Formats: sequence, structure tokens, C-alpha cells
Amino acid sequence: MSTPKPLALTMGEPAGIGGELTLLAWQRRRLLPRPFIAVDDPHRLRRLAARLGWDVPMVEVDCAADAVGIFDRALPILPQCLSVPAEPGRPDPANAPAVIDSIRRAVQLAQAGDCAALVTNPIHKAVLYQAGFGFPGHTEYLAHLLGQDGAEVMMLACPQLRVVPVTIHVSLAQAAASLRTEAIVHAGRVAAAALQRDFGISRPRLAVAGLNPHAGEDGTMGTEDRDIVAPAVAALQAMGIDAKGPLPADTLFHARARAEYDLALCMYHDQALIPIKTIDFDGGVNVTLGLPVIRTSPDHGTAFALAGSGQANPDSLMAALTMAAHMADNRSRVP
Amino acid sequence: MSTPKPLALTMGEPAGIGGELTLLAWQRRRLLPRPFIAVDDPHRLRRLAARLGWDVPMVEVDCAADAVGIFDRALPILPQCLSVPAEPGRPDPANAPAVIDSIRRAVQLAQAGDCAALVTNPIHKAVLYQAGFGFPGHTEYLAHLLGQDGAEVMMLACPQLRVVPVTIHVSLAQAAASLRTEAIVHAGRVAAAALQRDFGISRPRLAVAGLNPHAGEDGTMGTEDRDIVAPAVAALQAMGIDAKGPLPADTLFHARARAEYDLALCMYHDQALIPIKTIDFDGGVNVTLGLPVIRTSPDHGTAFALAGSGQANPDSLMAALTMAAHMADNRSRVP
Repeated sequence: MSTPKPLALTMGEPAGIGGELTLLAWQRRRLLPRPFIAVDDPHRLRRLAARLGWDVPMVEVDCAADAVGIFDRALPILPQCLSVPAEPGRPDPANAPAVIDSIRRAVQLAQAGDCAALVTNPIHKAVLYQAGFGFPGHTEYLAHLLGQDGAEVMMLACPQLRVVPVTIHVSLAQAAASLRTEAIVHAGRVAAAALQRDFGISRPRLAVAGLNPHAGEDGTMGTEDRDIVAPAVAALQAMGIDAKGPLPADTLFHARARAEYDLALCMYHDQALIPIKTIDFDGGVNVTLGLPVIRTSPDHGTAFALAGSGQANPDSLMAALTMAAHMADNRSRVP
Repeated sequence: MSTPKPLALTMGEPAGIGGELTLLAWQRRRLLPRPFIAVDDPHRLRRLAARLGWDVPMVEVDCAADAVGIFDRALPILPQCLSVPAEPGRPDPANAPAVIDSIRRAVQLAQAGDCAALVTNPIHKAVLYQAGFGFPGHTEYLAHLLGQDGAEVMMLACPQLRVVPVTIHVSLAQAAASLRTEAIVHAGRVAAAALQRDFGISRPRLAVAGLNPHAGEDGTMGTEDRDIVAPAVAALQAMGIDAKGPLPADTLFHARARAEYDLALCMYHDQALIPIKTIDFDGGVNVTLGLPVIRTSPDHGTAFALAGSGQANPDSLMAALTMAAHMADNRSRVP
């Protein structure tokens, strides 16, 4: 068996908790199935480790392949220098180009096959917007870099539950008004393919949540479940996908219900995020499906209030690194 | 200390699981803090017990006071005769008047002070509508009987969480469109008063969930949180109520977040019901607040498919009986 390729871990917002999470993840490297390489500023990581009194040896490398042999004794870093020193809790638009470049380079490493997958530390969108970043978020930027705008599907996963929200960062009224059969079908199709290819589930079972209370109760509480969601379920079934629904969302997420499916397709942000964050607040992983490269991310933000304290919880980043490694293993087995 | 008054337990839909739940609750009476009296048809309960092979002695009584001395050795029944024999799984509109009468009589017992509280078995609304029942559900009928139409507020409670949905059985689009500051304030005020009076919480802490993802993120994802929810929180605070919000709903229901409040005020059905049914699917209790009598109910339906099998899970009814008893204890302590 050949040496497994490392994962590429981006810098994220350098004023946030990303740097200390990267250091913590390396300290817990015995728990990780694959090495990773940090696409980050070595000076800022060294200063941060010194400030926290953490003993993290670091080695700057030129290429991802070198990271594997180094990882056991030092954190391998592909240098991505900042314009100004990062101050915990105080994001600076001057560093936005380096933040964006870290993502771009990690995508290139994954796309070129030098890294097995991409794991992204949290960014702070407002400061990137100030610097002219033209994408709603990480995921859309990745899709654009890969020439696949609109193909991306967001999944959130923890050991007990996987969810995909079909509509995401829009108001609740707009989520209801903008829900389309085509979008549900696209999300379901991409999710089913990803569960097969990257999660080793030969026949994925999708549970499709209704939009309205009790899934509309035969149209007496909203017609969208009958007119928009049900046709999407039928279309997915016609593609040979094991999809059920629309199902009442309130009874879909307790332990016995979860045993009946591999992924719940949800119609709006909180319908997906309330159950997963209720079940596993610290260990959830954000996974981008539908793109040619594997990408995971911790399911939390930059946590400026915690940055620099060393108190940030690395569970979600550890879960993201572990899931990316397992996805890469599964994908490498597919003929 | 005087003998505690019994609870009044209604028949509910006689073709559903209510009868066997009543029998199971009596069999587990050692776990209950107060006796109850069933306002039910003694013939149908005897037939049901015989069918299931359960040894449940029953005694017909004329008044609630007699129930207390009997309860330890037999199930006390205040007779409420059906028009036609109940067939499990096959609701008959001919029995609707008896179902409604059982509720009416139990309300009278509680209102007159003969019973400490009212606990209702699940009804099947469609069959009551066929018989001319003119109320959306149980709760509205109770409010009407008590001359308090519109005062009622629905709470769902389990040991880990209490939630109140401000809008309930309407489509998601309508929930967003019909949300009003006044309704949020009414629900919050009633809930805070009930937590003090009936739950022994001297200074209740309310968490008010936002309607939109991330509570609207400063108006970028919907303006309702800023324009409708935030003023309601301010109004509740001005009344001296410890209310916080609008808070992002997705991060509101994990264990650490729940430790910060006594009740979450939710803006729509699934925002309240997804977390509570995810956390405790079998033991949730539906509590009606804002009415002069205490009323609880199991948080499930008539389960026609299970009726007559003896397989129904009595956890929610047991929790409803226990919670009603504790609420009555607390209320009796208030000067």
C-alpha cells in the first residue's frame, strides 16, 4: 500500500481560533487517521504557540508529499505569509488576500492530487467582503474555483445524524417561497451519490422532511409538501434512489427514527441545524458534496472572543479531519 | 395535611390507545404522586382489560372524593357511557358526544375544585368534526368551556426542556407572515406566570428564539427578528420578565445552552417540536397554560394502528399525570 496523501488544512481567519485549533489538532495527531499540512503563516503559528506555552515543533515544506514523513515529529507548514501580524479577536482586511490564497492553494493541492482532501478553518466573511471577496461564503468560492458554480450541496454530519438543508442562508419566508422541486432533487441526487462514493453506503436511504408542520397534513397546513416536496421524492425514487417523504420533521430526529435513514434532506436552515446541533453541538462537521474534491470543515465560526486563549474546543476540527480522511479512503476504493 | 384531591383523566377517543394507557397507568400507580379518576365508560374498560388479559379491578364512583380511598386497590371510574361499543382502530362519530362530555365533565370537576387537575387522553379531531364539534382542538375547547377563548398557551415539556410555540398549526409561510409582537408578548407573559405559579420557579428565565436563520443576522436574512421579535423581548423585559433574544434557534437546544433558561419561546411549530421530540420522544407532556385549571396531556395521538394491542407506551401519560400532580402541589402552596 502506498503512503496515504496528506490532508490540506487552510489558515482560516487568522484573528480567529483557527490557528490554535490547528496546533491542538497536531498535538492530538495520534487520534488522526491521516497527516495534514497547514497552509498557513509559520510566523504567526510560532508566535501563537509561544504565547500559549505549547510545544509544537514546526517545519516549513515546499510540497505536500514532504509533510507525511514529518508529521509525526513536527507540524508541516506550506507557508502562506500574512501582510500584517494577526491579532486575536481583531480581524484585519489587509490579511484577507492571504486568507483567500490559503483556500485557493489548498484547493489546487487537492485538485492536483497532491493532497487527499481539503479541510478549511473558519473564515470571517465580513472582513473578506471589505477586501472585495465576491462570494457568499467558503463553499460558493470553492465551487467557483473548481468551475462548478451551483453544483455544491452542504451536508452537516455527526456520528448520529447527517442532514442536508435544501435552502440555506435566506429568511424563513423566503425559504418557503423559494423552495423548488428541482433544488430538492438536485440535493437528494448529489447526497445519495456522495454517500455511495465517499461514505461506503451502497444503497443510501434518504428521509425527506416536509416543509410544513405534520408535512402539511394533506394540504390543510400549506400546499408545498404536496405540490413541491412530494414530486421531488417521486423523482428521486424514479432515479432508483431510496427516498421517503415528505415526512413530519418533528418526529424525524429521535434515535429510533434516525435508525431508518442515512441522511435527512431538510427544507430550510434551522430544520437541519436544530436537530444536529441539539444532538452533537461540539462534534458536527460541515461537508461540501457535489464538487470534485473532498472538503470538510468544522461546524463553528471564528469565535473571536475565545481567540488566543487556548480554550477553543478542537472536537469539530478533529471530526472534520477524521471524516475527510475516511472519505478519501472510501473514494480511493471506488474503481 | 388534608387528603390530596385526585386528578381527572378523560376517556379520549375510545377507538384509540387511551383506554389501555389508562389501564397501564393504574397498573403503575405506585409511581404516581396522586390518584386519578377515569371519566370513562366502565364497560369498555372492562372489556379491554379482559381482551388484554390484564387484572385491573374497577370501581364505579359517583364523586371524585371517593376515588382517593379506592385508588390503591381499584381503578375508580366516573361513568361516561358510550353510545356504541368502541372498536380499536375504528372511530365512530356516534361516540363523539361521549368523548366531548368526558372532557366537559372533567373540566367541571377541576373547576369546582373536586379534582386538582385535568389530564386528557388523545382525541381524534376528524371524527369529532363529523359529529359537529366546532373547535380546532382540545385546548381551544377547554378555553371556551372556561370562558377564556384565546387566553390559552401551549407548552411542551420534558425533564430537559420546556418550549412554547407562538404560532402552531399553520403553514410555515403563514407562521412567518402572521407572527405578531403581541402574540409573542402574550405567550411569554403567560409562560412566565405559569412557571412561577405552577412550577415553583421564582424568577423564570425565557429564551426567545429568532424566526430566521441566525436570528436574521442583523436583518440580512429577514427583518422579522428585528422588527417583530426584538420589540417583544423588550416589552417582556419592561414587565420585569427575564427574557433574552432573539437568539439563533440552531444553537439554543443543546445541553449547555439549555442550562441558561427555563423555557424557550419558539416562533413556529417545528422550531419548538423538533428539539423536544429529538431529546425525549416518548416522555414529552403537552401542558395548557393561561387557563384557570391545570391541564396536561400526553404528547402523542390516538395511534389507531396500535390500539387494542396492549403495546402502547404509557411513558407520556405517566409523565402527564406526574406533571399535573406537581403543578397542583405548587399551586396549592401559593398564598
